Amino acid sequence: MPDSALWVHHDKTSWSVDATTMGVAPEALDQLPWTPTFNAMAALESGAIANPDEQRQVGHYWLRSPERSGEHQGAIEQTRDAVLAFAKAVREGVHTTDQGETFTHALQLGIGGSALGPQLLVEALGEGEGLELHFVDNIDPDGLQRTLDRIGAGLSRTLIVAVSKSGGTPETMLSLDLVLKALQAQGLSVSDRLVAITGDDSKLHRRAQSEGWRATFPLFDWVGGRTSVGSVVGLLPGALAGLDMAAFLEGSAFMDAWTRADDWRKNPAALLAGCWHAVGHGKGDRAMVVLPYADRLLWLSRYLQQLVMESLGKRHALDGREVEQGLVVYGNKGSTDQHAFVQQLRDGRNDFFVSFVSVLEDGRGPTNAVDGLANAGDVLQGMWLGTRKALDEADRPSLVITLPRVGAFELGALIALFERAVGFYASLVGINAYHQPGVEAGKKAAKGMVALQAKVLEGLGSEPTTAEALAGALGEDAGVVFHMLMRLSANGRIARDGFGFDARFVRS
Amino acid sequence: MPDSALWVHHDKTSWSVDATTMGVAPEALDQLPWTPTFNAMAALESGAIANPDEQRQVGHYWLRSPERSGEHQGAIEQTRDAVLAFAKAVREGVHTTDQGETFTHALQLGIGGSALGPQLLVEALGEGEGLELHFVDNIDPDGLQRTLDRIGAGLSRTLIVAVSKSGGTPETMLSLDLVLKALQAQGLSVSDRLVAITGDDSKLHRRAQSEGWRATFPLFDWVGGRTSVGSVVGLLPGALAGLDMAAFLEGSAFMDAWTRADDWRKNPAALLAGCWHAVGHGKGDRAMVVLPYADRLLWLSRYLQQLVMESLGKRHALDGREVEQGLVVYGNKGSTDQHAFVQQLRDGRNDFFVSFVSVLEDGRGPTNAVDGLANAGDVLQGMWLGTRKALDEADRPSLVITLPRVGAFELGALIALFERAVGFYASLVGINAYHQPGVEAGKKAAKGMVALQAKVLEGLGSEPTTAEALAGALGEDAGVVFHMLMRLSANGRIARDGFGFDARFVRS
Repeated sequence: MPDSALWVHHDKTSWSVDATTMGVAPEALDQLPWTPTFNAMAALESGAIANPDEQRQVGHYWLRSPERSGEHQGAIEQTRDAVLAFAKAVREGVHTTDQGETFTHALQLGIGGSALGPQLLVEALGEGEGLELHFVDNIDPDGLQRTLDRIGAGLSRTLIVAVSKSGGTPETMLSLDLVLKALQAQGLSVSDRLVAITGDDSKLHRRAQSEGWRATFPLFDWVGGRTSVGSVVGLLPGALAGLDMAAFLEGSAFMDAWTRADDWRKNPAALLAGCWHAVGHGKGDRAMVVLPYADRLLWLSRYLQQLVMESLGKRHALDGREVEQGLVVYGNKGSTDQHAFVQQLRDGRNDFFVSFVSVLEDGRGPTNAVDGLANAGDVLQGMWLGTRKALDEADRPSLVITLPRVGAFELGALIALFERAVGFYASLVGINAYHQPGVEAGKKAAKGMVALQAKVLEGLGSEPTTAEALAGALGEDAGVVFHMLMRLSANGRIARDGFGFDARFVRS
Repeated sequence: MPDSALWVHHDKTSWSVDATTMGVAPEALDQLPWTPTFNAMAALESGAIANPDEQRQVGHYWLRSPERSGEHQGAIEQTRDAVLAFAKAVREGVHTTDQGETFTHALQLGIGGSALGPQLLVEALGEGEGLELHFVDNIDPDGLQRTLDRIGAGLSRTLIVAVSKSGGTPETMLSLDLVLKALQAQGLSVSDRLVAITGDDSKLHRRAQSEGWRATFPLFDWVGGRTSVGSVVGLLPGALAGLDMAAFLEGSAFMDAWTRADDWRKNPAALLAGCWHAVGHGKGDRAMVVLPYADRLLWLSRYLQQLVMESLGKRHALDGREVEQGLVVYGNKGSTDQHAFVQQLRDGRNDFFVSFVSVLEDGRGPTNAVDGLANAGDVLQGMWLGTRKALDEADRPSLVITLPRVGAFELGALIALFERAVGFYASLVGINAYHQPGVEAGKKAAKGMVALQAKVLEGLGSEPTTAEALAGALGEDAGVVFHMLMRLSANGRIARDGFGFDARFVRS
């Protein structure tokens, strides 16, 4: 067999990670600092402050194994049971609108981790049972209107779920305002259609309480957005859509148990992290291209982009050194992408490795035989095997994650596999995987720009002026002011005369 | 103003490309070999064999300016008019099913360029008018079944559009078989529900003719898949979905005209290509992260991934040197991604540049004022302006493409902008942007694997054997044989006893 140290199996379930085509020597992986890595994960799971910048515990693994969480066990179990019972009651018509109608749609408002996990869940597992789910994951007014249009007359039977841990995420809170206006414009009652998912005693929490929203569920302080899919953030929409969220949690727990082995030769997450380190020199010099050969997993790469890049893309190491770490993730699905960017992977820049994801069972689909032996599933497998071979021959590394099927259990396990690999890799390179200082800084920068726009609008007089003149008067960047003035005039909020940098703007 | 040589405007339409934060000196761009680059594009548009490997003309620009195509003008205009008339007749109920019912759905079968452009069109512009569009862009039997489930009872009123230039794309032809079986299983007639889009006298063309399909439209030999959205491939589904495809073509023609300027300071596509070259040292050393701040453009990055990476990811230069060229593309949309991988962009690996896409008009969406001055659109603009500023301060290059709105005209123009930039960049680095030898090689490799599976199945006897023993007997790779046997047993086509590499397989 190919070097079996690089191919880890979970026998009874048929899961495996096959890294025999990564071009990595087992001896190289042996050199990595595994003991502190496994110790750090054990300490994290035992309640250490694994996110030191924010002085927080990191507890997403507890969500599927509450018995390991010590003091949090009661809260986790109680919340999980409450949210699943609530979703069941909604689905069964125990909870109805003020018109006595059952809820047929749910609209989740949330951004980043508050949307991506649920979107992956529904895309991968949704079968049209349960409520029809929609998401607003941005602050694009046009996009929000399109979502409302898609819901259409269903709006009166839509449960609105607002998710914000801090209770003040601007995109989500603004979206909520707009959705409430849409409800009110149709003369619909508001509070009994609303559910809040938020941190204890946040602004949103207090609002939900005082306005008497239908329900409020807590977001624990020690669960980060990008690992929140096993919390209420994912459990509620998943259960509303009719997915087996208990199985999802069980699958995650199964993978957690497997990936607690303190030997990389028996631990698929450690094998992944070790391979990422080896092919990328511990600096992410190779991007990870995620190619699941399953339509259901189209959103996986986008989900992993957030999980991996937000966790590993860090300026500073834990010891304060400037390291500019990261691991780029992109991809969509096979074999579709073979007719797209795989051309570059085979022939072009050798700056990546591929993570194939292979599903053993063909699923419910129709099948057909070509010359008696090969059906559609055979061809699909032939596509990735052929691509892997060609990449290997051209010295492009790849690995294969094999799972038996795409069910709730397996999706929970697959996500957990990458969560654990990300945690290990962060230890191997000495960074904090659980904060996001750049995102916080980005929020501040955006706020500054909104404030500047207010200054621009105030500064604009009744005499036409160029962007450059106005910027000079305000002591601001002329390019930024120009972009703002162009947009304001395009929306009829100010008037413009002339073109390009010579254009003059005036109050209208 | 910021260095205006790096900010190209189209005054009357408010389009602009602002590369003032790319960290590029105009003098550096002046050094690039523009004259041969502009000459090559002019020659291509005049009918030169711009794809020498395949000895083909490259004519996607003619699709929107048939008068420039010489001998092809009649065929282009006739085909365009025929397909738009056909779509109109379908929408207006002139064409009906054999039951006399109007068509309400269309299902396009195609992979790569035969799906991505139409998917982008419908995602960006679809407003729920016209037919409801669905796509099968893979050979995943489970994914195909889910699509059929979504269409549900609508299948009897679904127009099936099969797209394959060669007429033999295995994924598409297998999918067609499966869809036809589903039609037949419901007792539905077949031929009058089928439309073929294919090359002249291809296998598919002959089949459609002999079986009397509802319609057949030609795919011109000189249009490549990744630039086929302005051909029948995009015109038919777009028009069926009620989109203004004439405006789409006009928008592309508008951008073509603008980007024929033979001065990079007046040509936004040349500015883009020059900037890609400058920041990536002519080798793609920085990935392009595409961040449109518009929900409608979520599929843009995926579309550009194909257009850019399949065009530029090449092993050999035109002069035969081995160059391993390429330009990685990834991204989704802003501000959503700011809560995801933008953490890495701000703080982590400095190996990319961002292409922001900014839309001036807020669209049809609801709006709201925060302290009287800022609404949702203002916040959205603040998000990219703030992110750009933070990236700039951290020496991460970025540029901004501004368009007035996301309409059919503008989407045509946006795609054309990148088509032209890709063509220029290919000339700057001396490669053929119009072939895809790696994709062809991948098809062969997959075929080999399907053939190998047949050998594996034939070689398996009534005595249980391990993957390793069987592979040894066949003289094949044991790992590959193991992957195949595991999948065959998971689908009940052979029997397995035991786990992992020790498992023994036998005919069942």
